[in-house]
Amino acid sequence: MLYQLFEWLKNEGIKFPGSGLLQFITFRILLAVLLSLIISTLFGKYIISFLQKKQIGESVRELGLAGEQQKKGTPTMGGIIILLSILIPTLLLADLSKVYIRLMLLCTVWLGFIGFMDDYLKLRARKRAMSKGETYKKKDSDGLAGLSKIVGQVGLGIIIGATLYFNNKVVVWREYYEVQPTAVKDSFIKKGEMKVGDTVALMNGKEHRYAVVKTPITTIPFVKSHEFNYSRLISWAGEGAEKYTWVIYIIIVTFIITAVSNGANITDGLDGLAAGVSAIIGAGLGVFVYVSGSTRFAEYLNIMYIPNLAELSIFIGAFVGACVGFLWYNSYPAQVFMGDTGSLALGGIIASLAIIVRKELLIPIFCGVFLVELLSVMFQVSYFKYTRKKYGEGKRIFLMSPLHHHYQKLGYHESKIAVRFWIVTVLCVLFAIATLKMR
Amino acid sequence: MLYQLFEWLKNEGIKFPGSGLLQFITFRILLAVLLSLIISTLFGKYIISFLQKKQIGESVRELGLAGEQQKKGTPTMGGIIILLSILIPTLLLADLSKVYIRLMLLCTVWLGFIGFMDDYLKLRARKRAMSKGETYKKKDSDGLAGLSKIVGQVGLGIIIGATLYFNNKVVVWREYYEVQPTAVKDSFIKKGEMKVGDTVALMNGKEHRYAVVKTPITTIPFVKSHEFNYSRLISWAGEGAEKYTWVIYIIIVTFIITAVSNGANITDGLDGLAAGVSAIIGAGLGVFVYVSGSTRFAEYLNIMYIPNLAELSIFIGAFVGACVGFLWYNSYPAQVFMGDTGSLALGGIIASLAIIVRKELLIPIFCGVFLVELLSVMFQVSYFKYTRKKYGEGKRIFLMSPLHHHYQKLGYHESKIAVRFWIVTVLCVLFAIATLKMR
Repeated sequence: MLYQLFEWLKNEGIKFPGSGLLQFITFRILLAVLLSLIISTLFGKYIISFLQKKQIGESVRELGLAGEQQKKGTPTMGGIIILLSILIPTLLLADLSKVYIRLMLLCTVWLGFIGFMDDYLKLRARKRAMSKGETYKKKDSDGLAGLSKIVGQVGLGIIIGATLYFNNKVVVWREYYEVQPTAVKDSFIKKGEMKVGDTVALMNGKEHRYAVVKTPITTIPFVKSHEFNYSRLISWAGEGAEKYTWVIYIIIVTFIITAVSNGANITDGLDGLAAGVSAIIGAGLGVFVYVSGSTRFAEYLNIMYIPNLAELSIFIGAFVGACVGFLWYNSYPAQVFMGDTGSLALGGIIASLAIIVRKELLIPIFCGVFLVELLSVMFQVSYFKYTRKKYGEGKRIFLMSPLHHHYQKLGYHESKIAVRFWIVTVLCVLFAIATLKMR
Repeated sequence: MLYQLFEWLKNEGIKFPGSGLLQFITFRILLAVLLSLIISTLFGKYIISFLQKKQIGESVRELGLAGEQQKKGTPTMGGIIILLSILIPTLLLADLSKVYIRLMLLCTVWLGFIGFMDDYLKLRARKRAMSKGETYKKKDSDGLAGLSKIVGQVGLGIIIGATLYFNNKVVVWREYYEVQPTAVKDSFIKKGEMKVGDTVALMNGKEHRYAVVKTPITTIPFVKSHEFNYSRLISWAGEGAEKYTWVIYIIIVTFIITAVSNGANITDGLDGLAAGVSAIIGAGLGVFVYVSGSTRFAEYLNIMYIPNLAELSIFIGAFVGACVGFLWYNSYPAQVFMGDTGSLALGGIIASLAIIVRKELLIPIFCGVFLVELLSVMFQVSYFKYTRKKYGEGKRIFLMSPLHHHYQKLGYHESKIAVRFWIVTVLCVLFAIATLKMR
């Protein structure tokens, strides 16, 4: 809003000293990170004491793990700190007319709300059980358990998938000769958003002509062209089937958002784990957005250039700042947990950003920790059920799932496990970035 | 060396598949980070068990702090892991003919050696005391205590200062009209190192001419020109005094290297603290090197462009990777301490990099944690001496110095203090980067 305000004032002929800096996107990114760090670290403690007053404490699962008892009473729903630290800087500093910014704001609020309701219903169920003198069991509530949580995630997936598929500002550049000349009209690069049909000439020594087109392509690692078109998933069905690509695309987007947000949700089980991993993944996505949103880098690296993307780096700056700032209170020993309020949103934001920057097929690499955590639960449960059916007695693969609890049972300190998972994430993210060059 | 090898093979007409990627500096940076992460995490454990076998355990100061006893026997000298993880990737991937790379390799080995000797002498003194049945006191050894440690730091400062002042490949670009036309000969931008006297024309729309000159200027924040020339410190002494600027310059460089390496040394008192802070500062320096070494960014940000600098980012990549990888073992609860072997080198490397990229006057900002730790000790000691002299009884400002122990006495968990100091460093580094734009 500040951005819009100063732009408006400038058009009216009024200029404030220093406001000129806001036109530099790098400066706004820096401001966004600083602001979200300040909001989360300085105002976090007020939110935590508010949550404590409302007795919004987490009931820790009794798992027989070290240090578990001292966690009783630590307030949950700390994700509110993360949400505010993302939303406030973005609303102030980003150009709110951009479609990608609007989508990400929607995604943050939507998943934040679902997570909040989930946390809230869990708490209420626990309080009820306690007031009746019963022991609270996870089964009693399970929040918006199963169905309604999934409905929320699927709803968001459909909105994001449909917007990305149909909005005519969601475009990429293609080499001019690849697209049909009749489909484009000539016009040189201009300020502002680019729409389908625009063509641009990029000058760096030799002239290079690009056309702005809408196409459901994405980046795929390890193959020569580095590109994959979702319409190929349906083109086998015969002539004309391609126009139903949107169905496939929305299903895939929904699946990815649901999977990653559940992955983050499951990963959120040790102090500082999910926030730290998300911060590192966010920084990696920042690199993707930066290089894909810059004509120079995109050409140098020979990857697809995505117009209108640069503004998104302000949102990512706020996202990384929010995660790092949250660690101020959430690192071992945690004074607050993010709850589903935080973890669902973190995962959903990461998934949506990856889809927007068309790097969603790299998610299994750079979200390696989320994936492994999710798989550890799935394997553990399936293997247990399978062996119980076959041998009458359930067997386990891990001492406990999700994976981080397995290492806790092995005797590693909670804090050590979190830092090591961060380092693994650094490796995963760097490897994902390196795939841009490998072919 | 790999870089040189493949360059040589290419000139001989032999090409390996994939070796072409090495010509991309961004790819070599990525490889350097990945390699140093892999070396430190995978081979770290062998080095640790070797150190343990040699009984190179740290004698923990008895400070009455929580968890202090369990640290007894944790091996020190883990800095060897950091040194190897910096040196091996740099030697393999960087162009070793560049003066900045050579300087940094010297700096790493030199301070690593001093720190190692220091650790070694401390250990020997302790073992001796133990074999005589005496209690080991810090006083007995203090390693290369005082004098010889300082001599080593000062020696390095002189070498680095003199090289930077006199080597004719250590240059900056100035606008052509600022320098005397007679001092330069015309020649367009060419591949390879740039020397004094070269002039270049930068084409981006309008022509812009620069001259490559040697001048002891640096970046100073918050003033309009953003530049400060060290010769101004001596020009008051009259005509011709400027030719002695090198004396002042070397003194300042020596002071900075000594101060920062001692700052890092003092900061190294909690698990993961110094390594994490250094990693974040290293990443910030990477940004400085990247923007100052790119004509495009330097012009866009209107900061000084430093030729021949880009190669240094490979060293920085290895440095950051080494610090992060070291946290694998050094984060709470630590399985190894870096010792002076690590901390002196970390501080010295950071100082030298800052001087090379001409951002040394920003050190008080982005090394804020080192500075505050150093000051906390100085204030504590001076105030204690002063009050003892004045009132007969020494008083203290902090519960204990360095500052991190103060917070430990206040009841904060070691791990929490380390993470919060990391977050403060993130803020400091971002603020230092923001000063590039503020004027």
